[in-house]
Amino acid sequence: MNYKVIFNTIGRVAVAEAFLLLLPTAVSLIYGESCYMAFLLTAMFSFLLGVLLHLCFKPKNHVIYAKEGFAIVTLVWLGMSAIGAVPFVLCGDIPSYADAFFETVSGFTTTGASILRDVESLNHGTLFWRSFSHWVGGMGVLVFVMAIIPNVSDRSIHIMRAEMPGPVVGKIVPRVKDTAKILYLIYIALTAVEVVMLLCGGMPVFDSLVHSFGTAGTGGFGIKSDSIASYSPYHQWVIAIFMLLFGINFNLYYLLLIKRFRSVFRSTELWVYIAIAFVSSAIITLNVFPMYKNSSDAIRQSVFQVSSILTTTGYSTADFNLWPSLSKGIIFVLMFSGGCAGSTAGGLKISRTIMMFKMVGREFKRMLHPRTVSTVRFEGKTVEEQTLQGVTVYFAVYMLCILTTFLLICHEPFGMETNFTATVSCFNNVGPGLAGVGPMSSYADYSVLSKLVLSFAMLLGRLEIFPLLIALSPSTWTKK
Amino acid sequence: MNYKVIFNTIGRVAVAEAFLLLLPTAVSLIYGESCYMAFLLTAMFSFLLGVLLHLCFKPKNHVIYAKEGFAIVTLVWLGMSAIGAVPFVLCGDIPSYADAFFETVSGFTTTGASILRDVESLNHGTLFWRSFSHWVGGMGVLVFVMAIIPNVSDRSIHIMRAEMPGPVVGKIVPRVKDTAKILYLIYIALTAVEVVMLLCGGMPVFDSLVHSFGTAGTGGFGIKSDSIASYSPYHQWVIAIFMLLFGINFNLYYLLLIKRFRSVFRSTELWVYIAIAFVSSAIITLNVFPMYKNSSDAIRQSVFQVSSILTTTGYSTADFNLWPSLSKGIIFVLMFSGGCAGSTAGGLKISRTIMMFKMVGREFKRMLHPRTVSTVRFEGKTVEEQTLQGVTVYFAVYMLCILTTFLLICHEPFGMETNFTATVSCFNNVGPGLAGVGPMSSYADYSVLSKLVLSFAMLLGRLEIFPLLIALSPSTWTKK
Repeated sequence: MNYKVIFNTIGRVAVAEAFLLLLPTAVSLIYGESCYMAFLLTAMFSFLLGVLLHLCFKPKNHVIYAKEGFAIVTLVWLGMSAIGAVPFVLCGDIPSYADAFFETVSGFTTTGASILRDVESLNHGTLFWRSFSHWVGGMGVLVFVMAIIPNVSDRSIHIMRAEMPGPVVGKIVPRVKDTAKILYLIYIALTAVEVVMLLCGGMPVFDSLVHSFGTAGTGGFGIKSDSIASYSPYHQWVIAIFMLLFGINFNLYYLLLIKRFRSVFRSTELWVYIAIAFVSSAIITLNVFPMYKNSSDAIRQSVFQVSSILTTTGYSTADFNLWPSLSKGIIFVLMFSGGCAGSTAGGLKISRTIMMFKMVGREFKRMLHPRTVSTVRFEGKTVEEQTLQGVTVYFAVYMLCILTTFLLICHEPFGMETNFTATVSCFNNVGPGLAGVGPMSSYADYSVLSKLVLSFAMLLGRLEIFPLLIALSPSTWTKK
Repeated sequence: MNYKVIFNTIGRVAVAEAFLLLLPTAVSLIYGESCYMAFLLTAMFSFLLGVLLHLCFKPKNHVIYAKEGFAIVTLVWLGMSAIGAVPFVLCGDIPSYADAFFETVSGFTTTGASILRDVESLNHGTLFWRSFSHWVGGMGVLVFVMAIIPNVSDRSIHIMRAEMPGPVVGKIVPRVKDTAKILYLIYIALTAVEVVMLLCGGMPVFDSLVHSFGTAGTGGFGIKSDSIASYSPYHQWVIAIFMLLFGINFNLYYLLLIKRFRSVFRSTELWVYIAIAFVSSAIITLNVFPMYKNSSDAIRQSVFQVSSILTTTGYSTADFNLWPSLSKGIIFVLMFSGGCAGSTAGGLKISRTIMMFKMVGREFKRMLHPRTVSTVRFEGKTVEEQTLQGVTVYFAVYMLCILTTFLLICHEPFGMETNFTATVSCFNNVGPGLAGVGPMSSYADYSVLSKLVLSFAMLLGRLEIFPLLIALSPSTWTKK
């Protein structure tokens, strides 16, 4: 284990986080809030810690193997959240550190599950930092660091693999650093377009920024008690469409930029994603129709909620807890699906589900003709057996983790619907669940222990289980 | 596709079912109930149909390939249930055929989910047939037919594979027919011991028989409104222990008979099974302790309910719906587990779960050392890659089927807890769920369509998905 390279990288991230913390400091100053000191102090602490780590650990070689990659990603995510939670406590907006940690993990993992009962009473700095953590966590904080710092060896693909969601992570361009840069440029550009479109509809600057951050990261922290419900239909449509856009594989945007339209058009994952969004919205529209005044309301509410849950964002314009059982059932199943691989969305990812279905089809064939050898093709390419095995094993460990998390929080007295959907929602980085953790409720009533369990579930879901479990198993750290 | 061998075999099964139907006929006659005619008429119809099929379809070759195996198993299970449901309607105990079909499928698949609100008002013949269907379905009706009829080619292993639960079905002895015989002899012997032990405790003959059938098949249809609650603690302990015994791989009993004690002692699956039962019972005992008068009550209730759910039987001595959330959560997770492979229990099977965990462990290693080649060992043997892949694909298709079934019944207005646990319970052949389908409730309020969906889910679960799906896909039936 190359400890030096691990702690050196963590130091760099701590410095990066210090700079990121200057943004909410500035926001607090603009609004004349005293909480700017909370952000500034944390930024200074993070900076000093980062510089210290950077100076103390000078790695001789910068080569990062899988082991180091997993350790870096895990420690960075835990550390970022631990530091990011401090200002919430210092400024008094979230007095309990456990609550603040939950909120920050929920922010960075782009879950959007909140322990706050009343977001409208918070400082602007706090609101900004919550939403900004979605934006940072969405594309991955290490990808960001790789994009901006020098000395990025091409072995860092291990970091990228551990942090980027989806079964196959490739480089768009030969160098990892350039890939990271391109991804971030697309991300920034799309976010900027959303901000402009929200501003055009008359949304205040602050609101436009935080909602765009939340949409881009597919996070879901809002700044109103009723999430997006009190904004105009225009704003709701803009956010609904951008949620769907951020749930698409970012490689496709790059392909669009380099004018390879046919490759985009032929993406199976994209079409399945669109089909799921369309069919779910259509069924829910018909189902909730009697509850709304007119068809445009019913359509908008359905499309918004489907986009929000499918992309694991978690914004809401309606309390789907009050919808008929069929709609609630669809919402529940959508929580598992997630967006496309290589997007900022959580969940299982559409491409994994497609590959699963294809493997089931192959198993059919194999049971009928045991001696046939057949391959699975996806997006025009033959998928390697090892990738396929990775997908099925991921699926299994995913279900085992969900059931284990549920077992750990099922003693909470809120009923099974609440506890089970809370587990599924946190694990898939969605945010709201059903019943007691519905879109208009919060996770405030859970015990400290359960909040920690759910925080861990969010991290497991965001980092796709293996990096975290591997980094936390003692055998990874012992020398052979 | 060898149609002749398919329909010829179905004919044989129909004749066998006719003979089985003579038992409830006799029971009805003993109790002087007029419903004996319902069973007798159905038996005659089944016999005639069977003879007709047998005479019309004389296969030239008796070779059964995988395709024919799946078709036979599927058609036999559908046909058995369709015919088995008739007497319930004829005698007036279950007026609706859809209800009767649900009840019969629930019987043969050893689920034990019932649409009856008041079992105590039923005829003895009906009660006997319900429980007897558990016993027949537990070990597999085709395994039974293979054990008794001549002309069983050794290719019939395909039928056995399709009907016997678990990831690997081997022959105990070289010939399929002998294997089937040995399995049935062990099954009969264990059932007989249970009957005697229940009789010794003073349970009436009829009650002893039906409860032993229900236990042996891990079914769960009772004859009292409160299931087993009104019987003495002795009877409850006997049933609890026998449920656990019937959840053990029958191969182990054979190994005991041929005195290979060391092989039995070394079975990983057996130890994990015992550990799950022990740990779950212990936690639940502590959790429900305040609800009971004394510790022996608390222990008995916990062990009984854990045995019942773990082995997917479904008998109950307490309404676990009223237990604290932690206990309910454990009960819910146990529904997925199921007993050992090669037992009469449903669910995922312990051996599958163990293999899954081992594969997850291997994936860990592979992510750290991508070039390592490592195998998975289970019960002292290296597991073939194809079996492992079968296990993971099964796991995935199992979850997809559960979510799909839930989507199809989630419009029912009973709340998510009821609909989701109903799905999980039926799919895993458990019987009771939570909330509206708890151990003291029934499936009576579901619509006809949902009852059919749940019947299909029970069959999918009992036949482990693939045989049914393959047999029902049109491509299986078209000639190439």
